Amino acid sequence: MKKYNIGILGATGAVGREMIKVLEERKFPVGELRLLASERSVGKKIAFGGKEIAVALADFGAFEGLDFVLGASANAVAKKFAPNIVKAGAVFIDNSSAFRMDENVPLVVPEINPEDAKKNNGIISNPNCSTIITLVAVNAINKLSKIKAMVASTYQATSGAGAGGPVELMEQTKAIINGGEIKAEVFQYQIAENVIPHIGSFLENGYTTEEMKMQNEGRKIMHLPDLKVNCTCVRVPVVRSHSISVTVVTEKKLEIDEVKKAIANDEGCRLYDDTEKNVYPMPLVTSDQDLVYVGRIRRDLINENGITLWCCGDQVRKGAATNAIQIAESLIK
Amino acid sequence: MKKYNIGILGATGAVGREMIKVLEERKFPVGELRLLASERSVGKKIAFGGKEIAVALADFGAFEGLDFVLGASANAVAKKFAPNIVKAGAVFIDNSSAFRMDENVPLVVPEINPEDAKKNNGIISNPNCSTIITLVAVNAINKLSKIKAMVASTYQATSGAGAGGPVELMEQTKAIINGGEIKAEVFQYQIAENVIPHIGSFLENGYTTEEMKMQNEGRKIMHLPDLKVNCTCVRVPVVRSHSISVTVVTEKKLEIDEVKKAIANDEGCRLYDDTEKNVYPMPLVTSDQDLVYVGRIRRDLINENGITLWCCGDQVRKGAATNAIQIAESLIK
Repeated sequence: MKKYNIGILGATGAVGREMIKVLEERKFPVGELRLLASERSVGKKIAFGGKEIAVALADFGAFEGLDFVLGASANAVAKKFAPNIVKAGAVFIDNSSAFRMDENVPLVVPEINPEDAKKNNGIISNPNCSTIITLVAVNAINKLSKIKAMVASTYQATSGAGAGGPVELMEQTKAIINGGEIKAEVFQYQIAENVIPHIGSFLENGYTTEEMKMQNEGRKIMHLPDLKVNCTCVRVPVVRSHSISVTVVTEKKLEIDEVKKAIANDEGCRLYDDTEKNVYPMPLVTSDQDLVYVGRIRRDLINENGITLWCCGDQVRKGAATNAIQIAESLIK
Repeated sequence: MKKYNIGILGATGAVGREMIKVLEERKFPVGELRLLASERSVGKKIAFGGKEIAVALADFGAFEGLDFVLGASANAVAKKFAPNIVKAGAVFIDNSSAFRMDENVPLVVPEINPEDAKKNNGIISNPNCSTIITLVAVNAINKLSKIKAMVASTYQATSGAGAGGPVELMEQTKAIINGGEIKAEVFQYQIAENVIPHIGSFLENGYTTEEMKMQNEGRKIMHLPDLKVNCTCVRVPVVRSHSISVTVVTEKKLEIDEVKKAIANDEGCRLYDDTEKNVYPMPLVTSDQDLVYVGRIRRDLINENGITLWCCGDQVRKGAATNAIQIAESLIK
């Protein structure tokens, strides 16, 4: 079996570390694994496949001989190294938002548009985490009848802010229980016992950059250029799964039973909808897993072509690391 | 100045205790204050106006001589005593949901429909907490142009489940920090570091009783019999303020600036919307207050007659105790 040399750019962050774990779990055919990070992480050792791999410096010459580079870095780092990665002949699967809206860069959720990945010019973007989870949840509906509009309110975990997010939640929680000063450095305000309707930065239209991703990235991934999305993104004191309250309006009226059946048969989803038994997706149920759980499926009370649902998925895995590795898998199939 | 004899039915619960506090704070002209509860609370002493008042037994003869009875009990208790309260000549302002949809009982938010309170036959219902907070937030918009439809996703605090809710959140949080078993008795599942899309009980249409209140009570309070509301109610690990992500669609297209101005001038609201300075409503900001904070006001990206906003208010106060006392105030004016 052919093996592939993989680089991870930003290997010591939350998403980078999860990528290492997911490569191993999914038995990706890894030849060399090259862990790349900034100066201060060089030399750190991370376990993979029964060995310890030392983190190397991410510099312009670090990408030679690699087949794939999985990007788990900030936008600036992704932009800095992308030309060298492509020049070295590797495919750069980038989790940052640097190239997502670039028309020469496919934006891919493998369950939705795997064919786009094949049309890459060396760079493929991994979408925003809430967008991935929401689109996987509604993809089966879109196949039954085209989605025209979507209203989404998110309940986003602290992990979305990187490794420091859950640490800050834990520190604040300890301070509430044991006394002590509550410090807010990662988030704008205290997140423990609070919710913050602010993720990303504010745009002139009153929405945040994070909120607009659901529409902008959704249009590109689903090939629905006229899709309208009204999104509100909210941080909640949860460790790592994102939840989203979603209403979609489709071209045709769908029956609830056919929607449930389609979601149950969708490869990326787990239908988790039995209200009689209190079965519905929750962050505690979906963490450390790759499937997007979908439940609370019911008819919109406003528009008869509307379906309302609640979905939940692990932001670090399907929302980031797993999706990137699934893109690589789709390319080597 | 005329004074009024007030009874509180369920005086030892979270809402009952808050009613005592709010009566004092708002300098309601109280003559006698009679604190009523079930057997196990009889004799407990609660401070009011510099005195200690002993809790008396709520029984059929307990209401003679009262002008108002503020109800902070479960539905069954409200139903049991309502006829005796009315017979005793008191006005029963009931926070339970027992009579809310009864056509002979007005359902009142004093900022919205104070005139309905005057048409009472001895019973006035206090609406559901999320409904009160949401309707106060959108009332000024409805005055500019009638609301036809509303999509709401709630972020409801643990206080909505009574005094035991915040206690369970705190106990679970301690168990997370210090180790120990996590017990879920008040909520269906662990609420600490989780969100639960289930408040109330499930109906045949897939919505919960709590979710349908927003439409059913909203129609009655706002005198909008055709109002359509699509609501998703979610419990979050917050102590006592509820937050709601809301989109309303109005008959006419409104300008964002006129909406902001109307909300700023609305007596029940505080416009709290300056995204450049990270000013938006949050539970931590709004707890222990009577105003509903409204922010993140922007145009709906789906419907040009739509307005999207985020509101937040103290569930125990404006969502329950304060609203009931404001109803009494509107009657004695």
